[in-house]
Amino acid sequence: MDFDSFFKQALDGLREAGNYRVFADLERQSGAFPRATRYRDDGSTHEVTVWCSNDYLGMGQNETVTAAMKEAIDRCGAGAGGTRNISGTNHYHVELERELADLHGKDAALIFTSGYVSNWAALGTLASKIPGCIVYSDALNHASMIEGIRHSRADKRVWKHNSPEDLDRLLSADDPSRPKLVAFESVYSMDGDIAPIREICDVAERHGAMTYLDEVHAVGLYGPRGGGIAEREGLMDRLTVIEGTLGKAFGVMGGYITGSRELCDFVRSFASGFIFTTALPPALAAGATASIRHLKQSQDERRLHQDRVRRLRALLDRRGIPHMDNPSHIVPVMVGNATKCKWLSDLLLDNYGIYVQPINYPTVPKGTERLRITPSPLHTDADIDHLVGALNDLWSQCALSRAVA
Amino acid sequence: MDFDSFFKQALDGLREAGNYRVFADLERQSGAFPRATRYRDDGSTHEVTVWCSNDYLGMGQNETVTAAMKEAIDRCGAGAGGTRNISGTNHYHVELERELADLHGKDAALIFTSGYVSNWAALGTLASKIPGCIVYSDALNHASMIEGIRHSRADKRVWKHNSPEDLDRLLSADDPSRPKLVAFESVYSMDGDIAPIREICDVAERHGAMTYLDEVHAVGLYGPRGGGIAEREGLMDRLTVIEGTLGKAFGVMGGYITGSRELCDFVRSFASGFIFTTALPPALAAGATASIRHLKQSQDERRLHQDRVRRLRALLDRRGIPHMDNPSHIVPVMVGNATKCKWLSDLLLDNYGIYVQPINYPTVPKGTERLRITPSPLHTDADIDHLVGALNDLWSQCALSRAVA
Repeated sequence: MDFDSFFKQALDGLREAGNYRVFADLERQSGAFPRATRYRDDGSTHEVTVWCSNDYLGMGQNETVTAAMKEAIDRCGAGAGGTRNISGTNHYHVELERELADLHGKDAALIFTSGYVSNWAALGTLASKIPGCIVYSDALNHASMIEGIRHSRADKRVWKHNSPEDLDRLLSADDPSRPKLVAFESVYSMDGDIAPIREICDVAERHGAMTYLDEVHAVGLYGPRGGGIAEREGLMDRLTVIEGTLGKAFGVMGGYITGSRELCDFVRSFASGFIFTTALPPALAAGATASIRHLKQSQDERRLHQDRVRRLRALLDRRGIPHMDNPSHIVPVMVGNATKCKWLSDLLLDNYGIYVQPINYPTVPKGTERLRITPSPLHTDADIDHLVGALNDLWSQCALSRAVA
Repeated sequence: MDFDSFFKQALDGLREAGNYRVFADLERQSGAFPRATRYRDDGSTHEVTVWCSNDYLGMGQNETVTAAMKEAIDRCGAGAGGTRNISGTNHYHVELERELADLHGKDAALIFTSGYVSNWAALGTLASKIPGCIVYSDALNHASMIEGIRHSRADKRVWKHNSPEDLDRLLSADDPSRPKLVAFESVYSMDGDIAPIREICDVAERHGAMTYLDEVHAVGLYGPRGGGIAEREGLMDRLTVIEGTLGKAFGVMGGYITGSRELCDFVRSFASGFIFTTALPPALAAGATASIRHLKQSQDERRLHQDRVRRLRALLDRRGIPHMDNPSHIVPVMVGNATKCKWLSDLLLDNYGIYVQPINYPTVPKGTERLRITPSPLHTDADIDHLVGALNDLWSQCALSRAVA
């Protein structure tokens, strides 16, 4: 078999469908977020405003965070030097896990190299090691959860997105004696809608099921201490596992679970994806700890963040730019066509210095292609005006449909 | 089901078998490697010498590396702010991928958040997306490769460890028209033995199979530019994929594959574990690039490393401390019992200030429990004397069997 020809053919297929990904080559500018330098293919550069970052609060440039990272590098060096078990546990990891357990009001926490790995490894381990376990997975769960559940080879039921009724129906249909695990997210990344956590917990409890909540798009952003939607709703104690990330609102990198001491110790002791991998560099743990501590105290970032989101939505509405209504900070401007979505993104980047990546299949279903816009506390009124003005121009130029007022 | 009781029971099982892992809580000391501060449970601390780090060359404290990281933090901040596709590609990533492609003489490279993820995602994607693919996996391949292959659900054949003959036998038994992928490592982590790469490539080529070589315990350490065993043997061009890590000899964190432009683009475009995860922080990419560049030029670390390994082996031999003979830098001192292995490690730590983690099941087969010792260029003659003296004391104290001279 000519492997390279096979690969090329598959890539050509993506290109024809408009789904071939071209990464924007950026250089973030610490202190000037959301500004970044973009490298063009010819090596020349220009300045852009980033409108699609998951560094939702700009904590990546927070001076407490960057200072903590540099201090940890000075003290402990670059990497962890090993797996958590074999010389790789650093005191910064221990402190970070304490901080995370406290954030979610749990006994214990366990950090992973990424949010993806935390979902994959924790769900994969729980579902495969609990004999006879059935997993109930929300239909729109993230790839990392799906892959973890798939990897476990446990029986799986997919319930209608955000529907406690459908979850109840599926739970009721199964043998009451089998162990059950309900997995879902709080804020869904692409549509920005929020799960009815209380109702889902009610249903799960009625059936004696564990609950596993992914709060990666909520930690740092919601709740009086940044504990996420479950904190805001006063529901943290009803969830068996709260999973989160250090790489979005906290501005660094890494993922984690929090839960009972036994559960975290179990995953720590049996998860291949935790055991057999080099630990996070001490500097990342130090930066994340500083970020979490800051956002436990400070409301400024969260308040300003919500303010920017409201302003953007209002201006989009005024111009009739269609965006998906939702109760979160994610503003999906709907395009509905892969090629058009890419074309809009290219024009915004080249002609307006606005960087917002097109979101196409398989990240979202075909026909729902979008520009997923994420305002931060650091986007100014002028930034928002410029973005909406540019979208308005382009909507006229390519005769895209307007939202009905 | 009482989930916590179930977890507790499973953990008690580990404790009884002597396989429950207790992580040493360390603080690495940049500039003083292999020295570290150990935190005891009561919060008190003492100084230890680390003898089991995978920061094989001490590059984690190399000043070019740490300076590059701090500079990148000053320029670009803490995290990448998104997936590679959605605002997370930083110019430092682009430069690192060029550097890695050059290191292995390949057209392209692709970085992942860890070596574990690179194996899992690349093997999982190749084996599942190439229709009818059969994977031939060395019997001692790392957990990350096994999980990736398992995840792919491709047909799998396990060949006898390091046996090109057995590989040939298995390849010959299959339909010649089916696509084939041969996966193996150069240096095996726990035994420190080295694969007959040339012979394996001969066999694979004869059957038209792709070859996938994991060099995580070799990159930076072998070859005139630190390209690994395949570079040392002049075989890099015969391998379809060379996979490596940034978290061991390079001293930072992250993993990668190198190969043809089409292959890397294919994995980039289809691997869930690459697509749906936050990119490495720019500072890690900057540190890794600096480390690779340093080790492309400098032979000092590699020369001194081998010298330390030779000295340690000679002293162990003189005292009759049994260690597995192998042609690499990994020195497995054989104990053969989980409880005894843990006991030795505890005494070394508490009484001698020597930290070497016990390696028990499932990392190694039962009955082959060991102290896996990894000398670095920075371990002094006095360090080695102290280690061997301590082992000699303990071997006498607990009447462990000596190696036959």
